[in-house]
Amino acid sequence: MSDKAVQDCYPEEFSHCYGCGRLNRDGMQIKSYWNGEECVCRYTAKPCYSGGVPGYSYGGLIGSLIDCHGTATASAAKLQAEGFTLDDHAPARFVTASLKVDFLKPTPLGEVLELRGRATEISNRKVVVTVTLSAGGVVCAKGDAVMVQLSPSTAL
Amino acid sequence: MSDKAVQDCYPEEFSHCYGCGRLNRDGMQIKSYWNGEECVCRYTAKPCYSGGVPGYSYGGLIGSLIDCHGTATASAAKLQAEGFTLDDHAPARFVTASLKVDFLKPTPLGEVLELRGRATEISNRKVVVTVTLSAGGVVCAKGDAVMVQLSPSTAL
Repeated sequence: MSDKAVQDCYPEEFSHCYGCGRLNRDGMQIKSYWNGEECVCRYTAKPCYSGGVPGYSYGGLIGSLIDCHGTATASAAKLQAEGFTLDDHAPARFVTASLKVDFLKPTPLGEVLELRGRATEISNRKVVVTVTLSAGGVVCAKGDAVMVQLSPSTAL
Repeated sequence: MSDKAVQDCYPEEFSHCYGCGRLNRDGMQIKSYWNGEECVCRYTAKPCYSGGVPGYSYGGLIGSLIDCHGTATASAAKLQAEGFTLDDHAPARFVTASLKVDFLKPTPLGEVLELRGRATEISNRKVVVTVTLSAGGVVCAKGDAVMVQLSPSTAL
């Protein structure tokens, strides 16, 4: 466990993502924290990320959050499985092979969205994750993704 | 068939989406054209929509494009199934119930991305669509989505 966000520990060359890259000044810069079992992110979206009807999120934002938080979940879970923490190793970077999102309820804008991710399978270079996205304690969307490791984790 | 983009025909109250809303000034404003069989969109993304590595798209953009183009595909296919065109009826607005994206290859930024969508099933309020996303003739991602009708189509 660590107080550091997963994304703040990615190697610099992999830190330009619009959704989660700390070096992308125009992006969303979401932060995901690993608590030993789950990866948690809280994010309040700007009003411009509206769906067709103002006040609710567009589907692409929901997919983006689940995708970026899912890769962070994979990174953190794999790092722990290797016996390390974010304090002593840079996490491996994962990319998404496939992503399935179920949109359960309209997702409001202007309030905190909470993402919780878990790894359900960790094999050699593949981590399967499941993510929920909630608003005000209500699950609005669920995601399942297969993540593939791009880089090895690196001793700091 | 019509020369109009599907998104330019959505009722005003459903036209604020970050991905495809013509009234969202900060958004991507993608345009999808129905040719009688397929819905086609060409879009060149801004550099800020980078993935972890600059020069390639972030996964969320790919999901957003497939999602918004998928809803347009559903709208246009349903309108045609009802015997109308975009020239005489406003299309029904669809929302996404579920979306599955397979990321097949890295998707480059700075070149035209081409989306092609087809409806594979049209029932009462549900349309199932399949969408490909290509760059330079190479399919980089595929999507399958279940779309649900929000509003009836409306005579102009």
